Amino acid sequence: MVVASQSLEELCINSIRFLAIDAVQKANSGHPGLPMGAAPMAFVLWDRFMRYNPKNPNWFNRDRFVLSAGHGCMLQYALLHLTGYDSVSMEDIKQFRQWESKTPGHPENFVTSGVEVTTGPLGQGIANGVGLAMAEAHLAAMFNKPDCTLVDHYTYVILGDGCNMEGISGEACSLAGHLGLGKLIALYDDNHISIDGSTDLSFTEDVGKRFEAYGWHVVSVPEGNTNLEAIAKALEEAKSVTDKPSLIKVTTTIGYGSPNKANTHDVHGAALGDAEVAATREHLGWNYEPFVVPEDALSHFRKAVERGASYEAEWNETFAQYKTKYGEDAALFERMVSGKLPENWDQCLPTYTPDTKADATRNQSGATLNAIAGTLPELFGGSADLAPSNKTLIKGAGDFQKGNYGGKNLRFGVREHGMGAICNGIALHNSGLLPYGATFLVFTDYMRNAIRLSALSHAGVIWVMTHDSIALGEDGPTHQPVEHIASLRAIPDLIVLRPADGNETSGAYKVAVERAKGIGSAKKQASLLALSRQNLPNLAGTSIENTLKGAYVLSDSEGTPDIILIGTGGELYLCAEAADKLRAEGKKVRVVSMPSWELFEEQDAAYKESVLPQGVTTRLAVEAGISMGWGRYVGNEDNTIGVNTFGVSSPGNVALEKFGYTVENIVNRAKALLG
Amino acid sequence: MVVASQSLEELCINSIRFLAIDAVQKANSGHPGLPMGAAPMAFVLWDRFMRYNPKNPNWFNRDRFVLSAGHGCMLQYALLHLTGYDSVSMEDIKQFRQWESKTPGHPENFVTSGVEVTTGPLGQGIANGVGLAMAEAHLAAMFNKPDCTLVDHYTYVILGDGCNMEGISGEACSLAGHLGLGKLIALYDDNHISIDGSTDLSFTEDVGKRFEAYGWHVVSVPEGNTNLEAIAKALEEAKSVTDKPSLIKVTTTIGYGSPNKANTHDVHGAALGDAEVAATREHLGWNYEPFVVPEDALSHFRKAVERGASYEAEWNETFAQYKTKYGEDAALFERMVSGKLPENWDQCLPTYTPDTKADATRNQSGATLNAIAGTLPELFGGSADLAPSNKTLIKGAGDFQKGNYGGKNLRFGVREHGMGAICNGIALHNSGLLPYGATFLVFTDYMRNAIRLSALSHAGVIWVMTHDSIALGEDGPTHQPVEHIASLRAIPDLIVLRPADGNETSGAYKVAVERAKGIGSAKKQASLLALSRQNLPNLAGTSIENTLKGAYVLSDSEGTPDIILIGTGGELYLCAEAADKLRAEGKKVRVVSMPSWELFEEQDAAYKESVLPQGVTTRLAVEAGISMGWGRYVGNEDNTIGVNTFGVSSPGNVALEKFGYTVENIVNRAKALLG
Repeated sequence: MVVASQSLEELCINSIRFLAIDAVQKANSGHPGLPMGAAPMAFVLWDRFMRYNPKNPNWFNRDRFVLSAGHGCMLQYALLHLTGYDSVSMEDIKQFRQWESKTPGHPENFVTSGVEVTTGPLGQGIANGVGLAMAEAHLAAMFNKPDCTLVDHYTYVILGDGCNMEGISGEACSLAGHLGLGKLIALYDDNHISIDGSTDLSFTEDVGKRFEAYGWHVVSVPEGNTNLEAIAKALEEAKSVTDKPSLIKVTTTIGYGSPNKANTHDVHGAALGDAEVAATREHLGWNYEPFVVPEDALSHFRKAVERGASYEAEWNETFAQYKTKYGEDAALFERMVSGKLPENWDQCLPTYTPDTKADATRNQSGATLNAIAGTLPELFGGSADLAPSNKTLIKGAGDFQKGNYGGKNLRFGVREHGMGAICNGIALHNSGLLPYGATFLVFTDYMRNAIRLSALSHAGVIWVMTHDSIALGEDGPTHQPVEHIASLRAIPDLIVLRPADGNETSGAYKVAVERAKGIGSAKKQASLLALSRQNLPNLAGTSIENTLKGAYVLSDSEGTPDIILIGTGGELYLCAEAADKLRAEGKKVRVVSMPSWELFEEQDAAYKESVLPQGVTTRLAVEAGISMGWGRYVGNEDNTIGVNTFGVSSPGNVALEKFGYTVENIVNRAKALLG
Repeated sequence: MVVASQSLEELCINSIRFLAIDAVQKANSGHPGLPMGAAPMAFVLWDRFMRYNPKNPNWFNRDRFVLSAGHGCMLQYALLHLTGYDSVSMEDIKQFRQWESKTPGHPENFVTSGVEVTTGPLGQGIANGVGLAMAEAHLAAMFNKPDCTLVDHYTYVILGDGCNMEGISGEACSLAGHLGLGKLIALYDDNHISIDGSTDLSFTEDVGKRFEAYGWHVVSVPEGNTNLEAIAKALEEAKSVTDKPSLIKVTTTIGYGSPNKANTHDVHGAALGDAEVAATREHLGWNYEPFVVPEDALSHFRKAVERGASYEAEWNETFAQYKTKYGEDAALFERMVSGKLPENWDQCLPTYTPDTKADATRNQSGATLNAIAGTLPELFGGSADLAPSNKTLIKGAGDFQKGNYGGKNLRFGVREHGMGAICNGIALHNSGLLPYGATFLVFTDYMRNAIRLSALSHAGVIWVMTHDSIALGEDGPTHQPVEHIASLRAIPDLIVLRPADGNETSGAYKVAVERAKGIGSAKKQASLLALSRQNLPNLAGTSIENTLKGAYVLSDSEGTPDIILIGTGGELYLCAEAADKLRAEGKKVRVVSMPSWELFEEQDAAYKESVLPQGVTTRLAVEAGISMGWGRYVGNEDNTIGVNTFGVSSPGNVALEKFGYTVENIVNRAKALLG
């Protein structure tokens, strides 16, 4: 196929293709195949359908675009550049995949303005898209009025075979179908090629039928390489179906235009090579130098700037009217979008005294969530089918369901990984919604990549994880977290909190809510709460304020301590009781509560020294989890009472006793250390 | 419904139900709802269809049974007891969920003989079932002869709504459909209830249609509570379809028989309570005391013993004939099933000298896998669509595909979690097959629960994880593992190996292969290899033997060292070069290679002291991952060159340099420590 003259649309599409080809070639790294094949659908979408404002990437009512097949990021960078976003200059494109460039190897929302979510790990993006669409639906229900539509945008996703093979996408799409999210439109780049080769090797299911089974509307575009009108018609049709999400299966050729590599896996994840780049130029009739965009194409693309300004102006007008008529709602809307919290919001947090009856921190978490919900209408979350166990239901707030998008309780079903990515999507809608997702702590293993991405991509999510140790008991080792607290602490930028009682639980929520909004930290941060199934006494010395510091002196003897006992979560009260016994025997004992390593590490040296003086090296940490990493606080990692094997099915109190979580054992271990 | 007189079959089914009801009631913990609802299908399956030998639970050619909805384990314990397995006595049932009982809270294959795989985490079991069926198909292709069928059994799975909501089940079932595993038959306990309440809350997709889209044969049994003949007919039909796996959707009532709690989520995960137990007895006309099984029912169930003995005798006869005719194959079969390796098998492992050209350990891993495959025909594995990157293809061994079940290369597609559980299933077929599963190290996050279960359930799997640090480069932080090595070391009983060059890679495989067979350890163990994308030099001092010890002295100065540099994987050669520079400046430097913490911890105190003498406290660890836990070996965790933030997209060599992985930086850090 030698193209003698190209239509304007062909010019535009080939501009996308060659920016991708040339950037990957220059970096000698990257994925040209997807941008080359998906350029037509992306062009039609961005040119004829999507509403966005390149000069204000954060314009509230923009359509959201997610490239779930994130390895094809040059597609997105090309679109951002061509339509006039300032975040991706031609120089940035030339710096593709270089140190600290604006064009990293996969789309990163925290690096490149205009990128909504961080993708690359397959299936995350489409699930983020479900979250974005849920956020839109919920905000529309919260704010829209019969005479004034404030929230009204689509979420568009491009996903590939890889995304569709991943279980996370099935989880999220099944839920999206259940919820009838009509404004979610996914374009499936059906190119029959994955890294191993043809999808015939492992993926021969009927994807369209599967999505129909989920309750989606499914359209096919067999000529996805060339038939722009068919793509447009399918998008129109998808928009016309308002009670179901739509999947548009666009059949394409990976690496379209490359005469020798198209339709092979060679074009998926490596530069074409100089010779094939030249052959592709020849084949597509592309006489432009690398990184040169034909003027006609550029000026056509750049019409997006004017369009975008007018979309935003129109919306601003709507908002001005809204503000006049619905001042209170408008104020809430503005507060939420600004990322601020109401003044003194934290006064809603429950506090406790040692006289308050013993309770499980999961119950106190439930009480706290309900208290917060009264003050923060942006709270929007739920559990992966463990609401009665996780205690995450907001009373009276209703379920978010088809027909009741105003409901605040999310029913994720047994879909932890999907829940994780959906929560990330809700957070990264960046409209102030405050998502939380809950399951048993052990099942963070099912959603670990989504938790990691919440930390990496500054998604302000609260992860509510209950049943946090062997103390959960009878369900046994498959359900007993042992290595989980440590392995979550291992994730950079994630705040892990393991509160010991009611006050610390409230303190944990103060941290989690504020960090989710980026208050008290340089960026928005996700937090993870590890909560007990079993009842725990409320302790003297705990407080919300203390919790914020990550670790603090719960109780002390006069003078320099002989030993410091460090406890977290459900084991802190045992330390407190052991200290009393040791003190009765004349030992000077300090008890330190350490609900969060990360918060303690943020404190200044003087504070750290005041809690854990370097001079006091006799220390014992008590935590019902592996010892790994505790060396940082107790010197020798062996100076811990840890669980360094899998747990055992038995009543929780028996398990605790067998693993050494008794006052007596702590006293004995302390005495052994004291010599 | 008051039952005046019960048929023998009703007696049997109610025997299952009441063992579950009474055991849960006695423990005051557990899940009675599933056993009560699924008892009819389980009875028909175990009574009329399944071939097993209660007196030899390990009879090779038994049908495999998996309770994917593992919380309903009392169903399985009841069946094991009633059909005459010695592993579950009535006393064991009375000890349900108690410390060290044979009847833990979820089925654990390593505790209870007759349980094939460890389930509970939802969706794992059905994916294990896919692995069991793949093992059967592959062994049949390896061993069966036109005149002699040695391997020929079904894999039956009972799964629930929870399993079907989990993405992992979708991944595995899509692959099972692709592979056309006709001897996999899954009974879907379609009871419309999950923990949150009705599945209407979150799960309204058309499951049958979805499985049809996967390529499964789907049958429905609407009257699953009572119509035993319909269940039997569906099973017959499923067996008759030999080129597709079958899903039998059996509509049941959770907690069937409980007049006040049936069909509610109250009956899912808690004891019925004394009053409701009594009401259920009344309702089902059950006049027997707790833990009493009517004699007629028991003697009917126990016919399984005689049946089983005759099945096994028949098979033994077949095997005797096979042995006569096909001596060589029979010898291999016997060797594999015995769990032994051929004498001197490890002589196939490649060795290297410093003159061998630098290479990536992923390439050396590929060479090793190919070398092993020539010696160990039991090798059977593959990658989650990253074969060209993971270097996991066995040349000339063919792909395991529908129509070619003799192929040894598994094409998992982009389905990491499914791959993990499938590999566990293959291992737990316990026929000597040696599965391996591969992806990028960072995507262990997608399959972490399956990796954990490989360690917990003694599944001898080799996890081949490439692209093991920021050195992978341009793909950026979503693809760069940082916390992964540490978080995998955190999993009890998992052997993590990070080889530094070719010899260590071979050594890692020696460990992994032998541990998978339970050689050199008290139980079968899973191992995980972390391998480099980038080339690394082959070093003087590395060897297979050294690797087995977990850590060893790679090079040393005379006398007591001033400092010990500890390196792993791709950073070891930097330590070696830094040591040369430091020695040139008169420092006494020991370099320790530490490919595996777990193996080093197994060594005796004298060996440990010989490598890391307590007297030498000046130490520096160099590993391109988080520092967490290194305090164990270097005293202060800060004495590490670690990566304690997320990575950055850039060429790998740039990333390494920016994060301090240079000879110069190691030299400088060492000098600073030396003062």
